[in-house]
Amino acid sequence: MGKLDEVVITEVSPRDGFQSLPQIVPTEEKIDFINQILNCGFKQVEVTSFVHPKAIPQMSDADEVLQRIKRPTDVTLRALVPNLHGLERAIKAKVDKVKLMLSATDSHSLNNANEKTIDAMRGFESLVEKAEENSIQLEGSISVAFGCPYEGLVPIERHIEICKRYEQLGITDISLADTTGMANPDSIKRIIYSLKTQFPEFCYSLHLHNTRGMAFANAVAGFEEGIVDFDSSLAGLGGCPYAPNASGNIATEDLVHGFQEMGIKTNLNLDRIIEVAKKLQISYPKESESFILKAGKVSDLHIAPTEQIKLGK
Amino acid sequence: MGKLDEVVITEVSPRDGFQSLPQIVPTEEKIDFINQILNCGFKQVEVTSFVHPKAIPQMSDADEVLQRIKRPTDVTLRALVPNLHGLERAIKAKVDKVKLMLSATDSHSLNNANEKTIDAMRGFESLVEKAEENSIQLEGSISVAFGCPYEGLVPIERHIEICKRYEQLGITDISLADTTGMANPDSIKRIIYSLKTQFPEFCYSLHLHNTRGMAFANAVAGFEEGIVDFDSSLAGLGGCPYAPNASGNIATEDLVHGFQEMGIKTNLNLDRIIEVAKKLQISYPKESESFILKAGKVSDLHIAPTEQIKLGK
Repeated sequence: MGKLDEVVITEVSPRDGFQSLPQIVPTEEKIDFINQILNCGFKQVEVTSFVHPKAIPQMSDADEVLQRIKRPTDVTLRALVPNLHGLERAIKAKVDKVKLMLSATDSHSLNNANEKTIDAMRGFESLVEKAEENSIQLEGSISVAFGCPYEGLVPIERHIEICKRYEQLGITDISLADTTGMANPDSIKRIIYSLKTQFPEFCYSLHLHNTRGMAFANAVAGFEEGIVDFDSSLAGLGGCPYAPNASGNIATEDLVHGFQEMGIKTNLNLDRIIEVAKKLQISYPKESESFILKAGKVSDLHIAPTEQIKLGK
Repeated sequence: MGKLDEVVITEVSPRDGFQSLPQIVPTEEKIDFINQILNCGFKQVEVTSFVHPKAIPQMSDADEVLQRIKRPTDVTLRALVPNLHGLERAIKAKVDKVKLMLSATDSHSLNNANEKTIDAMRGFESLVEKAEENSIQLEGSISVAFGCPYEGLVPIERHIEICKRYEQLGITDISLADTTGMANPDSIKRIIYSLKTQFPEFCYSLHLHNTRGMAFANAVAGFEEGIVDFDSSLAGLGGCPYAPNASGNIATEDLVHGFQEMGIKTNLNLDRIIEVAKKLQISYPKESESFILKAGKVSDLHIAPTEQIKLGK
């Protein structure tokens, strides 16, 4: 989506963030937050997922949320769907784009989708047909692409096999997700380089978690490999199921601030983003993790103590 | 110090970490921690600073600490000194290397050393003489090199002016410090590239703080520009005076883990480092900030829930 000197950041806190909370965010509160998020300049927001309410009760109000938020015409509303039923709900709710859930490894796939990766992809055929009939955009994904918490590193042959099948399905927008923060700048570069070489017509995006403190380094590595589309979550909302206190998604304010400091355009209003992030942090203090909320922007300068004396402060 | 596929990491928690604590660490406890640190494989440890006890009471036991720790012969013990008196104490305490304190900007220098940057450097002449007489290694530094909390970004002409004077003094080992975490991968690369072009015979090292979540990205950017020497602090001990809850120095375990994941040799025992970091975190929970202590290593895999069922767990 973006050009080479600018990036496009998709806000995912309403989905990945709210889904990871121990409590269920009341629908009114969700709608209020999403409306504020839609005011920050994002071109795309992942608003919810259409999954079984028993599997993820936090998203059971997906249909109502979509119906009641103030929908700007220039923002793509994206939702995650695991299957045909989810897609049908997404179509009814008039989302603009649907992201398919898929794990890179069989053990992760068995745990999240009750079937192995390639079996899960067979089910995608009917979704592609349905999406085309309804002129809804489709995006593929590869979760745990840079490391699986059960299997460890994922060999590049696996990504290539999955992308071949995506290609057969006609899906060329692929979100590469570092679901539990196992990537490093080197693996990011190697995997993206290989995939771009094999499937140069594909559009890749990065979904990064800061579990091991490398998310921003990974974003920069991705950018250097030509990636311009990134997911992030306000106030860093979104956790890691294997380490209860570990950091979750890279915080939107940290990513936007970092890119802006590097002279990369984000076309986003950082101050408005910080305002909304602050509110989220106040509502969910335990689950938020954000550097900029703690330290302020680089441009927030201080008055030197010697000057304070002169000023009589 | 390091080769291009490996890095040398200097542990600074006994100085930068302990100095930033609100309380004074008892001398016994310091000695015990330093002895444990000296067992992790570090080739260089910054053990203390010889500053006026009124200015930094946390370091008032510098002489005793040096006298009582178990000194391995293959580890360089470094100490920070602000002036000739500090150097004399350091010589008496038999440190191997002394690091000079210097700020990139006049306002930071006035607040830390009571004089402007270039005036402070005039005082270095007598220190160089004294150090040579006593065969003690000298390292220069540039604090707030990538941004000053009072003045903002530092123009490259300033770094060049400072390095010219270091060259005249015969000091060619220079620590570039991002004292309050204002660097980004772009500024790191630009400043290092310029300095390496102007002073190719110099040895540069990076001292990074994770105030805005970019420390690891900055380390990678530095490595890509040929930097192989880095400072870090166990458990991320070490704060930021302008934002009480903000992250401090990049945590040694995070830096070592990240580099190792990238296939870069550190010649350090990560598990032993994690053990000592855990102890520091237990002692100073509020002041420590570490990703690896929260999330574990990438190689710490989990048993999938489906497998747990099979195993009867």
